[in-house]
Amino acid sequence: MPRGPKFRKVEGGVTATDGFSAAGVSCGIKTSEGALDLGLLLSDRPCVAAGVFTTIACPAAPVLWSRGLVEQGSGRAVVVNSGNANACTGEDGERDAAAMAIAAGQELGIEPDQVAVASTGVIGRPLPMDKVVVGVADAAEELSPAATAGDRFAEAILTTDTAPKTIAIRTVLDGKVVTVGGACKGAGMICPDMATMLAFLTTDAAISPRPLRRALRAAADASFNCITVDGDMSTNDTVLVLANGSAGNARITDGGEAYRHFVEALTFVCTHLAKMIVRDGEGATKFVEINVRNAASRDEARTAARAIANSPLVKCALHGEDPNWGRIICKAAGCGIRFKPGLAKLRIGGKLAFEGGTPADTPIAELEQAMQPAEIVIDLDLGLGKGAATVWTCDLSREYVAINADYHT
Amino acid sequence: MPRGPKFRKVEGGVTATDGFSAAGVSCGIKTSEGALDLGLLLSDRPCVAAGVFTTIACPAAPVLWSRGLVEQGSGRAVVVNSGNANACTGEDGERDAAAMAIAAGQELGIEPDQVAVASTGVIGRPLPMDKVVVGVADAAEELSPAATAGDRFAEAILTTDTAPKTIAIRTVLDGKVVTVGGACKGAGMICPDMATMLAFLTTDAAISPRPLRRALRAAADASFNCITVDGDMSTNDTVLVLANGSAGNARITDGGEAYRHFVEALTFVCTHLAKMIVRDGEGATKFVEINVRNAASRDEARTAARAIANSPLVKCALHGEDPNWGRIICKAAGCGIRFKPGLAKLRIGGKLAFEGGTPADTPIAELEQAMQPAEIVIDLDLGLGKGAATVWTCDLSREYVAINADYHT
Repeated sequence: MPRGPKFRKVEGGVTATDGFSAAGVSCGIKTSEGALDLGLLLSDRPCVAAGVFTTIACPAAPVLWSRGLVEQGSGRAVVVNSGNANACTGEDGERDAAAMAIAAGQELGIEPDQVAVASTGVIGRPLPMDKVVVGVADAAEELSPAATAGDRFAEAILTTDTAPKTIAIRTVLDGKVVTVGGACKGAGMICPDMATMLAFLTTDAAISPRPLRRALRAAADASFNCITVDGDMSTNDTVLVLANGSAGNARITDGGEAYRHFVEALTFVCTHLAKMIVRDGEGATKFVEINVRNAASRDEARTAARAIANSPLVKCALHGEDPNWGRIICKAAGCGIRFKPGLAKLRIGGKLAFEGGTPADTPIAELEQAMQPAEIVIDLDLGLGKGAATVWTCDLSREYVAINADYHT
Repeated sequence: MPRGPKFRKVEGGVTATDGFSAAGVSCGIKTSEGALDLGLLLSDRPCVAAGVFTTIACPAAPVLWSRGLVEQGSGRAVVVNSGNANACTGEDGERDAAAMAIAAGQELGIEPDQVAVASTGVIGRPLPMDKVVVGVADAAEELSPAATAGDRFAEAILTTDTAPKTIAIRTVLDGKVVTVGGACKGAGMICPDMATMLAFLTTDAAISPRPLRRALRAAADASFNCITVDGDMSTNDTVLVLANGSAGNARITDGGEAYRHFVEALTFVCTHLAKMIVRDGEGATKFVEINVRNAASRDEARTAARAIANSPLVKCALHGEDPNWGRIICKAAGCGIRFKPGLAKLRIGGKLAFEGGTPADTPIAELEQAMQPAEIVIDLDLGLGKGAATVWTCDLSREYVAINADYHT
């Protein structure tokens, strides 16, 4: 066996996996001329499918449709549009989501219940089905296993994102080369529990529905659920994986070593995609990792990390490169978790800022310097227990306000 | 008895109440030349005292001191500084808070345990006690019952506020004229449960400690705890009331009619002050009232109202005058409360935006118009139960980011 990194990055995204074709076309859902707004993804054979979705109380119509598909555990295609979320659209919206799957199924010669549907964009507007149907036909014609086709798919799912987000890796599992490819979108309105983000993953690993579902849940929990841009959750969040089994590994059916290896691979891909979303956060100029350690519990660690990450005051301080550790301590102390100031220790970029209930001796100039890199790590040790959590976020800039105040529905 | 409004506004703030003197001086805690940064408030006779404070896990030293005072239920004076919060300052900070009370007690000829202490400003810096001691002496010399002295006190407690915040009212209670006066500060970092805000109330009502405490809690809950600027809580939040009994009403000792009248008066004053804080929110251009009705419970109504009020996406839409009701519905549906899209009804400025799970028929132009006033009311009816809550907030502007990114510690 050749030596090398456990997960080797390769070119491409969803089409890096053998047996998958993709396309991205412009069908006029987005108002800007020629913008890609409809993507199609197809496997040349049946796949095991799994998904995780928004936990919001008003999921969009495509989420309801795709939930049904992953409950049955199989699927072969994904049709996705940007520019319109088909959310808060009632029964008409549900009919439209189904019509998208039916249109794609007809073009691809497969059953509609093998077609997952996703949408992202403006809420509360009827989907222009005439345009969608034309787009689906165009996309079906353009389907290709080329890397460029995967790129067009990745571009077609974007909204306020500034760049497509893709990755593909190869790893050796059970003596076979297994590929995991992915594409995602999401910029503003990103927070844990799948907030307005879409991610589509392809793999040739052979795996049964139940372990695939568990693996995706674990990978999403350690990646997409650890990011936050502005703490808002959306109606449409969807992470889907299709596994076509063509790698020829012994089918993963339980929680053994091969399963753990696969979870690791899926987590690697999802983490990469999740971090790309944060880096592309609306108006973001900083990538920030917040580690809370030694909290009274894991839940409390996560609560604190998210509270810090979502605080506008903390985010503004990060933007202004101001080592305002008081705002971080306040947020941790005020978010309802157990907190003892005398036991807490806060480091910014490795520099001690707060310890034993009082400011540390670190010269302010050193703390200021620690705020200057484009990537900043904040470590908060609560000194209480063994709970730990990491959250990735970005700063809050005037640009964020501009994007979200001036973007009209 | 003369007819007239139940609560008549009169000139002045804390010194509108008979028997109270105040002062505001500059002692150099703030860096800007001549800025008032130390205030003193004194009653000419013993008072019943009550307070509500931040619930943060790391309350500042002055909060610890003043909690002790209100536990004993009596007090005669308040000394407060701005420019330095004396927070996250450990045991040295506690010694400094006590020293402030001792210095004021000496100047005023009263016991230190009759002097409440409050601070607001930068966190984690030692209080410059040499300056504070000089300021206390200056303030004691300037003490005056004049309205202008109350104004100077109100100015001395400000930080990023753009204007002092005062009010005084008279009401007839038990056949006697009773006054309630107040001053407060707070702009950014304001959220329910007393986030970086200070409020000082004076009254000549005769009332026992226990009903005064209950009355203040009720008034704060219906006012200061209903506002939010950015969802952050502070180390120093304090609302104090001193009641000197000079109005001559029969001492309020229980929950009868006079008590209810007094609670109403106190709530009137606190609500006025709380709304002034929101109107002066950092960078605010809109005053927004969010009413959630018919939630499954009162707690859920409050959770939803706060979630909507604290959403950066909703706040940006308010700033941009964009009738983006989808962001409001998403926030309500995603904050963990019970929510049924089909039962929810959303009105913006009285115009129906969402009903029965789908967008309402209201023309978009009408909704756009509803977003234009400087004061906007958002009504969300969840159609589930009887829980109701109101929260007051403001929009999120580039100016907010500028203030909080560029303000250096």
